Amino acid sequence: MSQHTPQKLLLKACRGEPVDRLPVWMMRQAGRYLPEYRKIREKYDFTTMYKQPELAAEVTLQPLKRFPLDAAIIFSDILVIPEAMGMALAFVEGKGPQFQTPLTNVDELHILSRDGIEEKLRFVFQTLTLVSQEVDASRTVIGFSGAPWTLAVYMVERGTSRDFRRIKQWRFQHPQQLHRLMDRLAVAITDYLVLQARAGAEVVQLFDSWVGILDEDGVREFVIPYVQRIIAQVKRETDVPIIYFPRGGMQWLPELARTGADIYGIDWTLSLASARRQLPAESGVQGNLDPTVLLTDGDTIQRTTRHMLDAVENHRRYIVNLGHGILPQTPVHHAQIFIETVKTYSVPVPETSHHTHNTGD
Amino acid sequence: MSQHTPQKLLLKACRGEPVDRLPVWMMRQAGRYLPEYRKIREKYDFTTMYKQPELAAEVTLQPLKRFPLDAAIIFSDILVIPEAMGMALAFVEGKGPQFQTPLTNVDELHILSRDGIEEKLRFVFQTLTLVSQEVDASRTVIGFSGAPWTLAVYMVERGTSRDFRRIKQWRFQHPQQLHRLMDRLAVAITDYLVLQARAGAEVVQLFDSWVGILDEDGVREFVIPYVQRIIAQVKRETDVPIIYFPRGGMQWLPELARTGADIYGIDWTLSLASARRQLPAESGVQGNLDPTVLLTDGDTIQRTTRHMLDAVENHRRYIVNLGHGILPQTPVHHAQIFIETVKTYSVPVPETSHHTHNTGD
Repeated sequence: MSQHTPQKLLLKACRGEPVDRLPVWMMRQAGRYLPEYRKIREKYDFTTMYKQPELAAEVTLQPLKRFPLDAAIIFSDILVIPEAMGMALAFVEGKGPQFQTPLTNVDELHILSRDGIEEKLRFVFQTLTLVSQEVDASRTVIGFSGAPWTLAVYMVERGTSRDFRRIKQWRFQHPQQLHRLMDRLAVAITDYLVLQARAGAEVVQLFDSWVGILDEDGVREFVIPYVQRIIAQVKRETDVPIIYFPRGGMQWLPELARTGADIYGIDWTLSLASARRQLPAESGVQGNLDPTVLLTDGDTIQRTTRHMLDAVENHRRYIVNLGHGILPQTPVHHAQIFIETVKTYSVPVPETSHHTHNTGD
Repeated sequence: MSQHTPQKLLLKACRGEPVDRLPVWMMRQAGRYLPEYRKIREKYDFTTMYKQPELAAEVTLQPLKRFPLDAAIIFSDILVIPEAMGMALAFVEGKGPQFQTPLTNVDELHILSRDGIEEKLRFVFQTLTLVSQEVDASRTVIGFSGAPWTLAVYMVERGTSRDFRRIKQWRFQHPQQLHRLMDRLAVAITDYLVLQARAGAEVVQLFDSWVGILDEDGVREFVIPYVQRIIAQVKRETDVPIIYFPRGGMQWLPELARTGADIYGIDWTLSLASARRQLPAESGVQGNLDPTVLLTDGDTIQRTTRHMLDAVENHRRYIVNLGHGILPQTPVHHAQIFIETVKTYSVPVPETSHHTHNTGD
């Protein structure tokens, strides 16, 4: 496939092919910091925005019209899977979507079903197909899902929590019940990612936003085996590279590498050089500028971004990104400066690789 | 000094002397989960409780009357240092003490002064002296301070924050100004800890509760040098062992070991075995049961605590604790079960060390 898509810089980076410029995108790049996003948000509620494929595709493509980004990540919500499995969602203003009733008991697991997921999530696949048709051929289309642990946290805690006592009770008091929940989620997420790939996703990212609240034994027991299984199965059924973003889990990076992802999302707390040293040589990295840097000023943004790019040492299999989602208060021209700094950065040519030219932009 | 205090188990552990039982205390052990604490809190406001030495000493000793704990940590607030340096505090119900006006600008640094700190913080030293007089001779008296970075976060952000943008602006845009603030804090904290030791503290703990929001370069530039300097100076002027608790900073543990602390507080995210492997052989560890375990049930508490004690591998220089403060909702008898599980745990005798008996309890 790679010979047919020589111009897709981000895909090349995922596959470890040499690049003469670093691919860049931003987590939550289709979001509230964009005036054109806020304009649509004034007319439609959040749920409508991601459930109507034309609207979702339009919002997905907004940042690419403004900036020379290398990827379009589909505009959606990570809670669509539990919703499709049977948990009713409601949008709470200022908090985003939340489940109407949290999972409080393992006896409620029977309400969760993967049946009909393809039909219930058709809006996601339609959005992906629309985006694939409309996006410039040099950009990569990214699909995504929440990872099982993170979805379990949302399902049991309902929203975020100060001490996550409910999901911790499942973890410490009812581990077998938690395994049953994780198992159901892993199966549904696998289906979901495979269907996303068939609908047009060229790369998929698994967001494990709440892994950082666990203990190390918990990560070994409830996170790694399920993420590993999802990645192995998606790789058996598709050829899309997989990015795993274990936010707040940098203390376990060498262990998390057992999940078998192609690229690891690195949050801003760990330097990319440290991350590289802790990962196997064949793993790639993505990240990791602290999003608050984009609230400062042009000089600071340029200097801090260049420092990050210089320090990564090995520019193979590296996707430039923020270390977390872009903040809603970010001035648009600051995002522009970040992206331009990356695009004008000269990647040192490694002596051992061929320097190929791509058509670029 | 150690020959005069053979019965102080926690001090022995800090010094690396063999122990035949593991010392245990709990962060926030004098707190809202105790009915006798809530009774006093009904009569006095929080500020009065730590500013009146008799009251503060009484609250400090409450958990020791109920449980066979090995240490009394003085009841105080980590914001007393900035307050003594000139920043006015107000207690906000439900949020605790907050600064009336945050530090917004480096031009305001001149309001901060270490002059008269000994007088302004006399209530702390008096509390320590009272506690030292009243506490059973087998218990160790622990003093504490916030670490410079954590105090800077509170001073600049005022309270906690979602994205910590204000302190991050200092970090990325105005690093020289942040250095000036850190420098002033390090000097005052050093004085404060030395004075605590002279007033009766036998061990001191530095709480770096907000280190986890930084990036790795930030930790190298703004955290390690200042903590290192404080520890070196306190060690020159006193013989108290120092515990450094970099909560949320487990991804940098090998680097943080350069601070020179005797014992590192480990939050619950990292197993104690992993922490040991990443620290120099002469460093001790403290921790690290997830406090939500104490919300479960007796069997779960016993099993999880024993698992932690078994897994630590090396029981030298190990202080048992939670991985963060005890939660206010913790049932008192669950805290009791945790402590009893530790006290009845048989420490394997290492073949290479002498097995000494202490008077114990």
